[in-house]
Amino acid sequence: MNPMKVGLLGLGVVGGGTWTVLSRNAEEIARRAGRRIEVTHIAVRDTAKAASRVGGGATITTNPHDVVRDPGIDIVVELIGGDTLARELVLEAIAQGKHVVTANKALLAKHGNEIFAAASERGVMVAFEAAVAGGIPIIKAIREGLTANRIQWVAGIINGTTNFILSEMRSRGLPFAEVLAEAQRLGYAEADPTFDVEGVDAAHKLTLLASLAFGVPVQFDKAYIEGISQLAQEDIAHAERLGYRIKLLGITRRRPEGIELRVHPALVPSTRLLANVEGPMNAVLVRGDAVGPTLYYGQGAGEEPTASAVVADLVDVTRLHTADPGNRVPHLAFQPDAMSDTPILPIEKVSTSYYLRLRVDDQPGVLADIARVLAERSISIGSMIQQPSIIGGADIIFLTHEAVEGDVNQAIARIEALPFVRSKVTRIRMETLA
Amino acid sequence: MNPMKVGLLGLGVVGGGTWTVLSRNAEEIARRAGRRIEVTHIAVRDTAKAASRVGGGATITTNPHDVVRDPGIDIVVELIGGDTLARELVLEAIAQGKHVVTANKALLAKHGNEIFAAASERGVMVAFEAAVAGGIPIIKAIREGLTANRIQWVAGIINGTTNFILSEMRSRGLPFAEVLAEAQRLGYAEADPTFDVEGVDAAHKLTLLASLAFGVPVQFDKAYIEGISQLAQEDIAHAERLGYRIKLLGITRRRPEGIELRVHPALVPSTRLLANVEGPMNAVLVRGDAVGPTLYYGQGAGEEPTASAVVADLVDVTRLHTADPGNRVPHLAFQPDAMSDTPILPIEKVSTSYYLRLRVDDQPGVLADIARVLAERSISIGSMIQQPSIIGGADIIFLTHEAVEGDVNQAIARIEALPFVRSKVTRIRMETLA
Repeated sequence: MNPMKVGLLGLGVVGGGTWTVLSRNAEEIARRAGRRIEVTHIAVRDTAKAASRVGGGATITTNPHDVVRDPGIDIVVELIGGDTLARELVLEAIAQGKHVVTANKALLAKHGNEIFAAASERGVMVAFEAAVAGGIPIIKAIREGLTANRIQWVAGIINGTTNFILSEMRSRGLPFAEVLAEAQRLGYAEADPTFDVEGVDAAHKLTLLASLAFGVPVQFDKAYIEGISQLAQEDIAHAERLGYRIKLLGITRRRPEGIELRVHPALVPSTRLLANVEGPMNAVLVRGDAVGPTLYYGQGAGEEPTASAVVADLVDVTRLHTADPGNRVPHLAFQPDAMSDTPILPIEKVSTSYYLRLRVDDQPGVLADIARVLAERSISIGSMIQQPSIIGGADIIFLTHEAVEGDVNQAIARIEALPFVRSKVTRIRMETLA
Repeated sequence: MNPMKVGLLGLGVVGGGTWTVLSRNAEEIARRAGRRIEVTHIAVRDTAKAASRVGGGATITTNPHDVVRDPGIDIVVELIGGDTLARELVLEAIAQGKHVVTANKALLAKHGNEIFAAASERGVMVAFEAAVAGGIPIIKAIREGLTANRIQWVAGIINGTTNFILSEMRSRGLPFAEVLAEAQRLGYAEADPTFDVEGVDAAHKLTLLASLAFGVPVQFDKAYIEGISQLAQEDIAHAERLGYRIKLLGITRRRPEGIELRVHPALVPSTRLLANVEGPMNAVLVRGDAVGPTLYYGQGAGEEPTASAVVADLVDVTRLHTADPGNRVPHLAFQPDAMSDTPILPIEKVSTSYYLRLRVDDQPGVLADIARVLAERSISIGSMIQQPSIIGGADIIFLTHEAVEGDVNQAIARIEALPFVRSKVTRIRMETLA
């Protein structure tokens, strides 16, 4: 059978990995796909560097439009990142009737609705396994493996940089800034780490997972996003003593009133597998009504792990490209005409448990006053510890039962206005994942 | 669009669960599959009982051939178990041009080659996600999610009964027989537990995983199988003190000389996620050359978790039934004409590490003599502990580095013949899973 012809936009980390894996495992891949998959056209900035990597195996150009318009190409792999030129090229490839494989979560989280609609209309596939959790086949699992289920929630460690930083902060007792600097030296964090450490990258991925789980359009602008840069070493240590680990989680949950869509640090019971995912690894926990909890774990980034997902998509497209478009797996798991308009809940409407830490004067009546403020907002206390602070006064930590975030915010404002409360309240959400 | 019509053979635990999930989530499933999936014909032993469960929703018969030959049926779901009548019915369904979904690992581990060949020839699909690890989409992950990879090994906890028993033996310090009796009371073990506790069920599943990972025909008769019924509480406790947990693992590994295919108890470092999979849960760790390690975790049995996999297969078949048969996902992950004849290695050729426990007289020269026997067979010792035995003499435990099983067997025979060795050597394999 004729080989499948692939055009590659970008030959950076993931593009280079894709070239390497397709070359090294060409025979094994062909034994599975039933035909060879060959990269024949590559667009890069530096043609000399690209030529030294791929030899004479493919045509190399600096104009990505050449690749997208190449009539010999069946599938375009978009690995240039960003959401301006990438959007233009992906839409052009679709218009040319080509299938698209992309690892670009930012692009799909923002422009996925437009891109998937264009692809459905043109009868082509846009595959994006590499956009979430690197080599872990989590999109396939949710979109195809769990189709029997009404999915209840998804909670994931979907950013390796922040998980590496949190693991190091905990195991070595170091502050955020110091570990970040080390992560940058080791190549686990970028020179400008904002997208990772402030949770934006995780929110891009979570936006896609929410659509796949619940059949809602992608709505990145509705996601609540809080990163780890403000997290104090002290709270990681307190959490550990209480039997929890702090992880940056992406959480999306179906509620009767709407869908929660939030990225933030969270305490997780240390007995959970998810709490034991350390270093740069990723893991996603999915709960379905029939299957119960299932967990998917692996490397969420890196040259070959991400290429593993890109190539799996290439094989999928190779297998499915002759199938009747109406019977293919829908881009967002649900048929385009069966999407749901269930709203995304604002963070004030989210329900979860909370870790609250306060510094107070050590005097009679303090606990009673705080407890009253919480009780007035129906916030029930699961456990409490109080200890003298090394800088005077006392530290109190409350672990609450499930409460509504808006009520908790009001309670915190009231508590901070109490005369004996010395500092802002530290508030970290807590997830039992049960 | 017309609904997909399903015939159900068996309405026991999994059949009943399939009916329940298809009914409860009918709308959500149709939103994904693009059409409804309806069970219209059911074969059972007790029609009155079945009628009380499904009401008037489907035709009920005691003759499974009626279902298989029903011209209105698109997909036959085989859930009667066993490998005589089940084989006959599956082959008949295929001959009738019907797609088949089955949870029957024993059938496929023994007759898979024949069944898949018949299905390929007739251009129909035989889907079997429910045959391995219940609701975890592990077959989809290996067969479709990791197609980029040369898979190196697969190691899994794929029998919930034995994992429950081992968890209880460890956490409560109880002997095998006592925990087994409790597992039977709780419904985690059958009245005749042989298939589970002796590793046969796990070996059926492992046989399928090996074929999917390496593209070899199913060869259940070549699997090495050792269960947990001879496992002493004492060794679980020793392992824990040494930083390991004992799990019943199914392991299949590609070696230059052939493929390892083995089920047996194994020490696993307690820091590994796999070591922390407790109770009746299942987990499978897959290592690919591009993706590195990936892990899949969830409920490996039970009414609705298993039904989750059956229904996912029904949706897959619904989506793919119009696709060109040559482009569908091959039954065993590799194209039928690209299967490998790499041999399965006999257990004597397997390489792994070992936990060896001996009871000896407490006298000079003992350790030197044993160490010499091991050294003569190139078995290198990683660590050793010796402690007085409560019944006199001393217990010695060796943890070896990787060695060939045949050499270890010879060494054990020599050691047992030494005059100061009081008992048989206890030998448990050890897997670092690195």
